[in-house]
Amino acid sequence: MVGFFIQKTDLNGLARRGELRTAHGTIETPAFMPVGSLGTVKGIGPDDLQRLGYRLILNNAYHLYLRPGHDVVAEQGGLHRFTSWPGAILTDSGGFQVFSLAKLCKVTDEGVTFQSHLDGSLHHITPERAMEIQEALGADIIMAFDECVPLPSLREKVLDAVMRTNRWARRCQAARRRSDQALFGIVQGGRDPELRVQAARDLVSIGFDGYAVGGLSVGEEKSVMHRMLDATVPELPSTRPRYLMGVGMPEDLVEGVARGIDLFDCVVPSRHGRTGWLFTSSGRVLIKNARYRRDEGPIDPACRCSVCTSYSRAYLHHLFLVKEMLGLRLNTLHNLFYYASLTQEIRRAIEEGTFASFRQEFHAKRASVAGMTIDDPFDGEGENVTVARGERASGKLLPRGE
Amino acid sequence: MVGFFIQKTDLNGLARRGELRTAHGTIETPAFMPVGSLGTVKGIGPDDLQRLGYRLILNNAYHLYLRPGHDVVAEQGGLHRFTSWPGAILTDSGGFQVFSLAKLCKVTDEGVTFQSHLDGSLHHITPERAMEIQEALGADIIMAFDECVPLPSLREKVLDAVMRTNRWARRCQAARRRSDQALFGIVQGGRDPELRVQAARDLVSIGFDGYAVGGLSVGEEKSVMHRMLDATVPELPSTRPRYLMGVGMPEDLVEGVARGIDLFDCVVPSRHGRTGWLFTSSGRVLIKNARYRRDEGPIDPACRCSVCTSYSRAYLHHLFLVKEMLGLRLNTLHNLFYYASLTQEIRRAIEEGTFASFRQEFHAKRASVAGMTIDDPFDGEGENVTVARGERASGKLLPRGE
Repeated sequence: MVGFFIQKTDLNGLARRGELRTAHGTIETPAFMPVGSLGTVKGIGPDDLQRLGYRLILNNAYHLYLRPGHDVVAEQGGLHRFTSWPGAILTDSGGFQVFSLAKLCKVTDEGVTFQSHLDGSLHHITPERAMEIQEALGADIIMAFDECVPLPSLREKVLDAVMRTNRWARRCQAARRRSDQALFGIVQGGRDPELRVQAARDLVSIGFDGYAVGGLSVGEEKSVMHRMLDATVPELPSTRPRYLMGVGMPEDLVEGVARGIDLFDCVVPSRHGRTGWLFTSSGRVLIKNARYRRDEGPIDPACRCSVCTSYSRAYLHHLFLVKEMLGLRLNTLHNLFYYASLTQEIRRAIEEGTFASFRQEFHAKRASVAGMTIDDPFDGEGENVTVARGERASGKLLPRGE
Repeated sequence: MVGFFIQKTDLNGLARRGELRTAHGTIETPAFMPVGSLGTVKGIGPDDLQRLGYRLILNNAYHLYLRPGHDVVAEQGGLHRFTSWPGAILTDSGGFQVFSLAKLCKVTDEGVTFQSHLDGSLHHITPERAMEIQEALGADIIMAFDECVPLPSLREKVLDAVMRTNRWARRCQAARRRSDQALFGIVQGGRDPELRVQAARDLVSIGFDGYAVGGLSVGEEKSVMHRMLDATVPELPSTRPRYLMGVGMPEDLVEGVARGIDLFDCVVPSRHGRTGWLFTSSGRVLIKNARYRRDEGPIDPACRCSVCTSYSRAYLHHLFLVKEMLGLRLNTLHNLFYYASLTQEIRRAIEEGTFASFRQEFHAKRASVAGMTIDDPFDGEGENVTVARGERASGKLLPRGE
């Protein structure tokens, strides 16, 4: 089983410092989970992740159900053994992927029928089946099967999805067979605070080992996400871990923690890394930029990661331009270090009772670097939001797994 | 400068155990050099290479001249600093790449005019320019600029190329300015033993720090390569290192060492790794094969590499099928470990005076595994030769760098 222990709560707010204890190690929270959709964070080994300080990663049930198949993983002794990852694992139930990746997705109360995004083959996933798959995969934390609707949607449609998500959550809770896995419920409700509250209260009445806030960071304004957290978190039991799904950019982590979130996952550090978008304490570095061609300095002079202590921007620029695999790997290693460091700083600030000032300084620093930053003024989420909006316009969710 | 010291010579043949001392460390010979054409072995960092025991790698002057430019590398303090590789480096002069990769290649006595394979831009490389480029790149060992002809070619054409290669070698020797780099001459001569002898004698009369045998492993039969080595090596001074360029498969290393070769380079461990061809003590494993889908065993039960001690064939099979970068990296790490181990075994056998029996057992083991091997009977070079022949038929050399 998974235990959650809160060590300290910020006096001025909802931020808290905790420990998630699992059969595969203890995770200091707030924590960020790197995403390894197909059983690997792209280009990064379990040894790398451990060296970076990660103790909990996310794998995607949808992807692993399709390839290599949850039965194959189960036969190999489960995900930990199959992927040689000694730390803890959380599996996303596949709900989000079914709605964002799969073709011809048909939802009934029974479950979802969809076509694989790979070969068009037909699949049927019910809440019971989602539990079966995740129990076969064998993660430490598994997620209830939820219905995700794109934003904005009509209130009626969002309400329907919330009701169905919660009915499914009840069925997930009833269907689970393994007692050694924690099951988290997922609060849906779009951008409607009332729906969020209603969804949260109902889920809590069922009772889960932890609670996730889902369906956000799909193209809405940051302020909407913040309002949804402000509405939802107070409804969740303070003794259980809270997980903001698929989020996000560095500032989203800080703001999520301030609103009482303990866990995050996002493809941003790895996916942005592969596009040459590198996070630094003073803004982003877009390594493909010609100005780095002869730049002997590290990505971030203030960073102590294995990449910044060994390689120059000029070399990383070269690797990126010639499309060398090592470049993708090094960029990802740096970004994952940045995220690990950021959550470490957040945890320390909460421990020391200085989270409020940490948060203020974090934002002030970013606001101040316009003009003095290494690259463009920091406008972190700009590109992301644009892409997400484009996807939203087509009535599809932005694929989140990778 | 680079010094070469022979510690032991096999009593029954030409195999020898030596040490190549450079400003960037000592290399135990016989040694194999991983190929990092663009300043990186694909997907593998300098830290990985060091852990694998490599102390000397090859970079390609042709590729680095085009991208990022030898001037950029020089400004960054040379290849060692630019790529963060603390070990020794040998740069190929670019001769082979100009003839195998470039478009519209026109050769005169003055030099070669060719179009970049990247953007069609026009370039002119003379022996003097090849020295200038390699001195800017700053490797420990640099190569004379040579003319490579595809095999088979008319004797007249091969003779012309040999004469020109040696005139160019003389100009390279005269043009070099740095005394801290070793310069190796390259023996050409196609598949004609007499031409090889003539080329070698002439080169030796010029005098080089080491001697390479070039223009082999371009599609000819193994026996031809062996005859060329048998003819050439006795003409080379025993006190200088001998380098068989672009070779090869594991059995080629054993046979090359038996014929007095000290150094090898080849893309095979990395390139084959990326295609899922894994070397083992009892034959090859083609990891994409469906039989590995549920195989819990390591690539090679007898192997102690970081991949075999951590990952199953089932996981590597999965990573390969879903095209995950980590799979390419792990496959390459395993193959590079295999090559490092093989050369280590070769060195030990020479030290212990048992190289003749080692060689016999090496081949006997491979011959015996037909039918009992993990995968198909070992027919290592089969595919390679076929591909090379196809390339040869078109009058082009098989591109060797990667």
